[in-house]
Amino acid sequence: MIPSPDRRFVILAEGMFGGDASKTARGVIKYSSIPTIAVIDSTKAGRTVGDVIGAIASGGHVDIPIVATLGEALAMIPRPTTLVIGVAPAGGKLSPAWRSTIQQALDDGLDVVNGLHMFLSDDPEFTAAAARSGARIYDFRRPPERMEVASGREHLPGRKVILTVGTDCASGKMGVSLELARAAREAGLTASMAPTGQTGMMIEGWGVAIDRVAADFIQGTVEWLTEQAEQRGEWVIVEGQGSLDHFAYSSVTLALIHGARPHGMVMVHQAGREAHHAFEHCGRLAKLRSLEQHIEAHEVIAALVEPSRVIAIALNTSFYPDDAEARRIIAETEARTGLPTDDPYRFGPGPLFSRIRTAVEAVA
Amino acid sequence: MIPSPDRRFVILAEGMFGGDASKTARGVIKYSSIPTIAVIDSTKAGRTVGDVIGAIASGGHVDIPIVATLGEALAMIPRPTTLVIGVAPAGGKLSPAWRSTIQQALDDGLDVVNGLHMFLSDDPEFTAAAARSGARIYDFRRPPERMEVASGREHLPGRKVILTVGTDCASGKMGVSLELARAAREAGLTASMAPTGQTGMMIEGWGVAIDRVAADFIQGTVEWLTEQAEQRGEWVIVEGQGSLDHFAYSSVTLALIHGARPHGMVMVHQAGREAHHAFEHCGRLAKLRSLEQHIEAHEVIAALVEPSRVIAIALNTSFYPDDAEARRIIAETEARTGLPTDDPYRFGPGPLFSRIRTAVEAVA
Repeated sequence: MIPSPDRRFVILAEGMFGGDASKTARGVIKYSSIPTIAVIDSTKAGRTVGDVIGAIASGGHVDIPIVATLGEALAMIPRPTTLVIGVAPAGGKLSPAWRSTIQQALDDGLDVVNGLHMFLSDDPEFTAAAARSGARIYDFRRPPERMEVASGREHLPGRKVILTVGTDCASGKMGVSLELARAAREAGLTASMAPTGQTGMMIEGWGVAIDRVAADFIQGTVEWLTEQAEQRGEWVIVEGQGSLDHFAYSSVTLALIHGARPHGMVMVHQAGREAHHAFEHCGRLAKLRSLEQHIEAHEVIAALVEPSRVIAIALNTSFYPDDAEARRIIAETEARTGLPTDDPYRFGPGPLFSRIRTAVEAVA
Repeated sequence: MIPSPDRRFVILAEGMFGGDASKTARGVIKYSSIPTIAVIDSTKAGRTVGDVIGAIASGGHVDIPIVATLGEALAMIPRPTTLVIGVAPAGGKLSPAWRSTIQQALDDGLDVVNGLHMFLSDDPEFTAAAARSGARIYDFRRPPERMEVASGREHLPGRKVILTVGTDCASGKMGVSLELARAAREAGLTASMAPTGQTGMMIEGWGVAIDRVAADFIQGTVEWLTEQAEQRGEWVIVEGQGSLDHFAYSSVTLALIHGARPHGMVMVHQAGREAHHAFEHCGRLAKLRSLEQHIEAHEVIAALVEPSRVIAIALNTSFYPDDAEARRIIAETEARTGLPTDDPYRFGPGPLFSRIRTAVEAVA
């Protein structure tokens, strides 16, 4: 989708790098095959990516500098070729304060990769600047022209389809999906992650940001993404979105369950989180339901179309810096739920994938 | 939304009037305050609306003629002022064969009301014709500019919010919603139906076709429609869509449950239906789940955000022409589920609304 040779990213994350809102920035830094050479955040200028998010979240890319302005990044040799909009605020609206930075990037010939609901290529000033300099604008949330309801297709023979689900947004479903696909490849299998959000698309180079698809076609679009992923490998990990108990986003989660019709679901949960990220002010409605209630609801809902079980729990233990404590929480969760449990992002995905493989091969 | 004085509808339902695909036509004929004076369907020309759909489905408007062409309708005195596109095929695509009829209507100065996913006002030929004649095009499925995720707002004090849900598409949720709102008004209460689909919008004159809203905003849009309906009356009936066990549309259904957060749900089921309407070819995936499985799933899913019970069953008994048999099926269903059950469309909504009122007032 984005031609990658000789491409270098600078990520705009002004005022937010390292926080929950910068998950796009962190995902691209850790997982993209295209190198990030600078992050723009004037509130953290002079520090490095490793200083702010550490070695695990940066995938070892700890030395990337954080700069105050796009101008500083453009003075680097070699200089960046592409500006990535690296935050995704609730509702996806573009901050007006960022317009001048985007304008400067396009004036200077940098491509711009945008995952916001607001499409930069609908903006006459941006398209005029891009036309003058030859820069390209990639609006990754623009829905495909294809508008098809789900057909009820069957999986290709021999394919194993796993869906990551979760107890909240921004809990680590994309990272777990990428790690499980990597583990499958390391086990000698062919595997593909089906990207369903803008960050996954930036990393994998294809996919659809399904939250922008018209509701009538979202399950058809998930089915189509699953089909494409099945053509790319025997093991398919469909990237989950949102959570079934989220009053704002639950329908996107359900569309994934019924559109992908997975052979098994992997439940991602951030240990210690009690309220929905960015909705903490919503009182009782923000409260995360228990893992047990989530597991029951996912299986009841899946069975309305095609039975599917939660076969493993991927705990995000990032709230617990001590490794021993993290391992204790993992063991407790496994004992409580009876499901294989690990933090594949922190401790490596191999062991959990091996147990997931056994569970899926028993039903697929 | 459509100015109604001196407006008269002609409904385009070519080849499909009376079938499942013509539910828009039937809904508008029965419930709109704007009179329908002709239906276009050359395969049934010469018959009347009553001949084809009977007195119940036409709301007593049995004498409306069915004609072969728009030209015949235009020869009537007084002539129609507005062409309604009266079918909504799966996926919502406009049949190419209908273009010339629409073009003729616009050339002749008739407004056109369209509920398809394809927007007529995006078509240069149609907009040019409308500009020449002064006709207006109403694309009722065009989503609102507003793009807001759900906020978690509380219901206004004293409001009672009911959501119709169902075991399938096209099972009668809109009709039940309209009938329950009518029964509330007849009981001396203020009531409003919140239209969530194009037919309901044509009838009530406001609303949003939520299946065309971008998935990220569908729950926020349902919340906003519920808020508007609460400002119109004490009793709110939110029009349901789809069904939770439908592999193509279940996420729209879930968005209604979590977006409206109703005080109670009324389950609409077409007695005798075993496979999802228009998806009968999909084998096991088309099979309707049992009422019991539906009730459990709806309550499990609602409780993930806010507890809500299924408080009544509205049976669509249209497969059973004999009244005594219909009443027997209603009684059996009530005995089996323990829930107040009736066919409010066929036998009048008063008795069922009265029992629903008792159940809702116990929790709201």
